[in-house]
Amino acid sequence: MRMYDLIRKKRDGLELSGEEIRWFVEEYTKGTIPDYQASALCMAIYLRGMTMEETTELTFAIRDSGEKLHFDGINGIRVDKHSTGGVGDKTSLIVAPLVATFGVKVAKISGRGLGHTGGTIDKLESIKGFRTDIPVEEMIKIVNRYGLAIVGQNAELAPADKKLYALRDVTATVESMPLIVSSIMGKKLAADDDCIVLDVKTGSGSFMKTLDESRQLASMMVEIGKRAGKKMLALITDMDRPLGLAIGNAMEVQEAIETLNGNGPEDLTQICVCLASHMIALAGCCGGDYAYCERQVWSLIRSGEAIQTFANMVHAQGGDALWIQHPEFFPRAKLSRIVRAGKTGYITGVNTEGYGMASLLLGAGRNTKEDQIDYSAGILLRAKTGDFIEEGEPLAFLFADREERLEAAEKTFLESTFIGDQAPEKRPLILDVIR
Amino acid sequence: MRMYDLIRKKRDGLELSGEEIRWFVEEYTKGTIPDYQASALCMAIYLRGMTMEETTELTFAIRDSGEKLHFDGINGIRVDKHSTGGVGDKTSLIVAPLVATFGVKVAKISGRGLGHTGGTIDKLESIKGFRTDIPVEEMIKIVNRYGLAIVGQNAELAPADKKLYALRDVTATVESMPLIVSSIMGKKLAADDDCIVLDVKTGSGSFMKTLDESRQLASMMVEIGKRAGKKMLALITDMDRPLGLAIGNAMEVQEAIETLNGNGPEDLTQICVCLASHMIALAGCCGGDYAYCERQVWSLIRSGEAIQTFANMVHAQGGDALWIQHPEFFPRAKLSRIVRAGKTGYITGVNTEGYGMASLLLGAGRNTKEDQIDYSAGILLRAKTGDFIEEGEPLAFLFADREERLEAAEKTFLESTFIGDQAPEKRPLILDVIR
Repeated sequence: MRMYDLIRKKRDGLELSGEEIRWFVEEYTKGTIPDYQASALCMAIYLRGMTMEETTELTFAIRDSGEKLHFDGINGIRVDKHSTGGVGDKTSLIVAPLVATFGVKVAKISGRGLGHTGGTIDKLESIKGFRTDIPVEEMIKIVNRYGLAIVGQNAELAPADKKLYALRDVTATVESMPLIVSSIMGKKLAADDDCIVLDVKTGSGSFMKTLDESRQLASMMVEIGKRAGKKMLALITDMDRPLGLAIGNAMEVQEAIETLNGNGPEDLTQICVCLASHMIALAGCCGGDYAYCERQVWSLIRSGEAIQTFANMVHAQGGDALWIQHPEFFPRAKLSRIVRAGKTGYITGVNTEGYGMASLLLGAGRNTKEDQIDYSAGILLRAKTGDFIEEGEPLAFLFADREERLEAAEKTFLESTFIGDQAPEKRPLILDVIR
Repeated sequence: MRMYDLIRKKRDGLELSGEEIRWFVEEYTKGTIPDYQASALCMAIYLRGMTMEETTELTFAIRDSGEKLHFDGINGIRVDKHSTGGVGDKTSLIVAPLVATFGVKVAKISGRGLGHTGGTIDKLESIKGFRTDIPVEEMIKIVNRYGLAIVGQNAELAPADKKLYALRDVTATVESMPLIVSSIMGKKLAADDDCIVLDVKTGSGSFMKTLDESRQLASMMVEIGKRAGKKMLALITDMDRPLGLAIGNAMEVQEAIETLNGNGPEDLTQICVCLASHMIALAGCCGGDYAYCERQVWSLIRSGEAIQTFANMVHAQGGDALWIQHPEFFPRAKLSRIVRAGKTGYITGVNTEGYGMASLLLGAGRNTKEDQIDYSAGILLRAKTGDFIEEGEPLAFLFADREERLEAAEKTFLESTFIGDQAPEKRPLILDVIR
């Protein structure tokens, strides 16, 4: 087999065989196919697309490119959720304890943030002592005892994806439907869950800018997951606004705690309840009756049981569980600044990617993998899309350790907030459910 | 400027600015842009195309990427011809002496063969003692004295093209109109000619498989040459048959000698007279009257003056001019084989690329740049498209130094020769003239 022939075939819009796709992924992972041929193929895939068959083969080849996790040791049904990335998205921190409290197991492998999006692992590490580099055996014990664990990636899961993603990132081939699908699902399927609920974001801060594209992406991932023997469901959710009011690691954990205590922002609470209820229903609880599951989840929040599950996990993973009861222990940023509205009007929309960039500029994220994170840095929103605001009123508080960071972030933040005369149309937060 | 942004722009079908294109070519030549980004851009160009403006900018950037030749020292009008590559194409060896004999100067930089196509430099080196690594100053002296010189590329002409072509060759991005145009014209314009006549091949053995595509390619090259201040003309010629009867280095030189003596195959003679006459007319001789130039060229062949010019050049470049008068001096291959028709019928067509491959298998070409050429190896055709042939009659003679080479080449040759019941439609050799 020659890589040249594969590139030419895809360039001409033809379908690659399963054998060809598996050969490419194996050889590229080994390093025998050079980057310049792989990037030409990625661009051809970007512009020519892939069939469902090809995308499935690519996903399975990525899944099979490295180690796989085995969760047989976990007693009970295992469910995972995956979000296609977002700004201020702390849903995992809330959903996992809710589901685990209900008795469905969550053994979650999470990632770190890069660029304008944050990562669950970074957020959890803002809790004093919290360990995320936990071996699988220990993870299984924690899950069996407390119902959940959230750890970083130790095993070499789907190394093909890591290599391909790094290449796509610098060759403008990230936003390709089959490449996104195979990247996300290739990694997800290397873990060992029974059910997966996907949260596919749509809008300015996400891969998919239109609802139709997002539906298509979600359908492909659901279908491929089913072909791999998983129970699947996907929500399409609005990414034209950040979730909740906090963007930044320690502040997001605190907001998650408030939400588990029943005092969280409405949008964040709504989406977490929805995600958790679907996960529980998909796992077959309450006869799979979503409405019933949803009522149960609400009662878990009210009873304070879910926050206890979260505290248990923090304790089991070496973190100081006292911080969960007393969020005032989280470190505060040295400096803060109030960003004020430049004119009176409605907030007609925000560029969530821009908010993510502002948070990065404050020190809450990483530009390169080596950058250090300032856990206390971030943004606390005071106004969101649809709100009416007077000139000079606060739009947000910014937190950082240096004046120049506040300066740079304020500029980006203001450029990403659009104020106009007309109230924007109300858009539902959850736009569709794909089964 | 970021390479990522250029790739994305072209990926989305947008037009790159002159500044962006020049920046890319400069930085890629320097090595600061990695191959994997350049190949992604090439694939995006392949699938999205380029406007005339972009193609012009790319051509000029490639031209300006290295040294340029200066032929001011040559007395008289300088004309060059360029062929888009062919199998058995020895026209340069015939056309250059014809034009030079007429008084128009030919200072020709030629290339070596790679893959299924031969190179003029390799063909000339089959003459004992012939030197092709001649410095520009010496070349100018030879041209002023004898009217012509054909040398290899010494100066770093258009290094961007060399690097880009090597990359395109392994990433299936060769057959892209703007990339072909800028590659050919970028190199051509780095030399210092007043007039350029292009021989654009169309058909199975060439870049462009259809007449329309070939016309478009020719028009773009003519237009870009004019924008660079050159007098330009292009012929579209049929590549669905090899030119003449000989394929292979020494045999092609011998066929060129026969043609300059007036005894060449009809198709080869016709195209050479046409090319030479256009070159002379374009240079402004005989008031640019093509028909008059053509009559003059015929008389040069009949008078034996052109073969004398060729012998002069061979002598001036260190070759044994006696070989030109006595082609029997050229070395003969150790082994030969007659390829016979497997059935009775008309030759309805041939795959010229397959003939080129057969010649490569015989040892007449190079698979990699390091391969040694067997100058005596090659193919002598006995039947061409349109001929009626009985089963068992010879189709061609193959020459090589090893039995297994004859074996492999015979198989490829027969697979590339199509015999059927119907005589094929006659197709003119010269299909169009683009000014």
